[in-house]
Amino acid sequence: MAERAIGIFDSGVGGLTVLKALRQVLPGEQLCYLGDTARVPYGTKSPGTVLRYAQEAAEFLIQQRVKMLVVACNTASAVAVEAIEQRFSLPVVGVIEPGARKAAAVTRNRRVGVIGTEGTIRSGAYTRAIHAVDSAIEVFTAACPLFVPLVEEGWADHQVAYLAAREYLAPLIKQQIDTLVLGCTHYPLLKNTLQQVLGPEVQLVDSATETAHLVAGLLGARNAFRRRESFAPRYFVTDESTRFKRVGGAFVGAELDDVTQVDLEREIKGSATS
Amino acid sequence: MAERAIGIFDSGVGGLTVLKALRQVLPGEQLCYLGDTARVPYGTKSPGTVLRYAQEAAEFLIQQRVKMLVVACNTASAVAVEAIEQRFSLPVVGVIEPGARKAAAVTRNRRVGVIGTEGTIRSGAYTRAIHAVDSAIEVFTAACPLFVPLVEEGWADHQVAYLAAREYLAPLIKQQIDTLVLGCTHYPLLKNTLQQVLGPEVQLVDSATETAHLVAGLLGARNAFRRRESFAPRYFVTDESTRFKRVGGAFVGAELDDVTQVDLEREIKGSATS
Repeated sequence: MAERAIGIFDSGVGGLTVLKALRQVLPGEQLCYLGDTARVPYGTKSPGTVLRYAQEAAEFLIQQRVKMLVVACNTASAVAVEAIEQRFSLPVVGVIEPGARKAAAVTRNRRVGVIGTEGTIRSGAYTRAIHAVDSAIEVFTAACPLFVPLVEEGWADHQVAYLAAREYLAPLIKQQIDTLVLGCTHYPLLKNTLQQVLGPEVQLVDSATETAHLVAGLLGARNAFRRRESFAPRYFVTDESTRFKRVGGAFVGAELDDVTQVDLEREIKGSATS
Repeated sequence: MAERAIGIFDSGVGGLTVLKALRQVLPGEQLCYLGDTARVPYGTKSPGTVLRYAQEAAEFLIQQRVKMLVVACNTASAVAVEAIEQRFSLPVVGVIEPGARKAAAVTRNRRVGVIGTEGTIRSGAYTRAIHAVDSAIEVFTAACPLFVPLVEEGWADHQVAYLAAREYLAPLIKQQIDTLVLGCTHYPLLKNTLQQVLGPEVQLVDSATETAHLVAGLLGARNAFRRRESFAPRYFVTDESTRFKRVGGAFVGAELDDVTQVDLEREIKGSATS
């Protein structure tokens, strides 16, 4: 069991920031990544549709015989982690709880901001997760639909991104937050721009790093670490791989070699699981 | 046959600019619109995936017994119009040829710019269509991936849109174009911003209007006009309808009432066509 890969999925390239953090924290693990690039993005879609897509992705990765699932997409984590856990008997980790815990731990004035996609913010999942740790924390949220396309365009440090960030963050700055949760796996690439708009006093919480630490803790508790030399991650995508390789390379900071296109619906129908 | 509706499809809300133009030009026609909102956008996806989605959309509308199909999405028009025409025996109109013809007709210096999604620009479809009319016209293209999310965010007249337009259009301005084709059905909402960046000398060509005139011409030639009082359009979407109603209302300039969510795969499987 310990030898098996960790399965990671996201709507597209964003979850690669989580994959990158996992490689840093757990260099001995084998990683198997699925990006649902034929249906990306999830952030503007309804909870019911996102849940259906996430369950299909989970089923595919379970067919690849992974030992654990990481839902490396905030929108999918917000609506699908519990449902996937209930349906399949393996550990499932979302990105929301780790980020929420970290934010609750580092805030001093108990005024925390959360930014994410429309779907993530509308779900209220971060507010609930932060309040589960400390109900006295005031949480201020903002949906930032333009950040994902800005990052994918390679404009994370462009003046357009700066202006958009100023617009989106103004209400949170007014609320004097001292901590901002980056509630979307694309946002770590915007760190410089966000810090510039917020000033150096506001602490940024990156769910990717926190999630990697949680995964390490869970594997340790189950004595399920893989201790052999690891291979490069395997990547699966649902659209052709050209764009995934180009945009995703910037997320991982390395070329993505082993990328295979799969048809989720066909793969799942062919199995006994569904 | 004349009494049947005109079927229109797009990846999401963008094609509503074409629907609006059709209503103005052909007020007596019944319109049936499908937005593939569970899989939007098409513009960043591969030709193979877009072709598959477009064929499913066409099949669904043909089941609704439409008399003609309008592919109200530039990305889908670029890769799927011919394939759909070959497969189904009814007239199919894309948005590229009408826009290309108009541009060729209005340019004086024979230097035409075309802007669109990654998929539309990469396909080279506009350049081919313009050259089919006049091979001496020089065509300069630019992919503008941020324009769709900017429009959907309601920021079409925001400074962020102005800055992004300045960045995207700079190479076209340098080429001294006198005509710019809005090669994406979202872009008519950016007209003010684009005109501001380009100056008043450059003429904007809106494919939506041109497409509506072509549809009118085709119906006239076949003596297939519908002459009775028309009902409000029927709308079908593949995701829940909340966001479609909210964002789409701004495109049509009216509330969207009759919106039904459908599962394309299920609908199509249930038919004898596939």
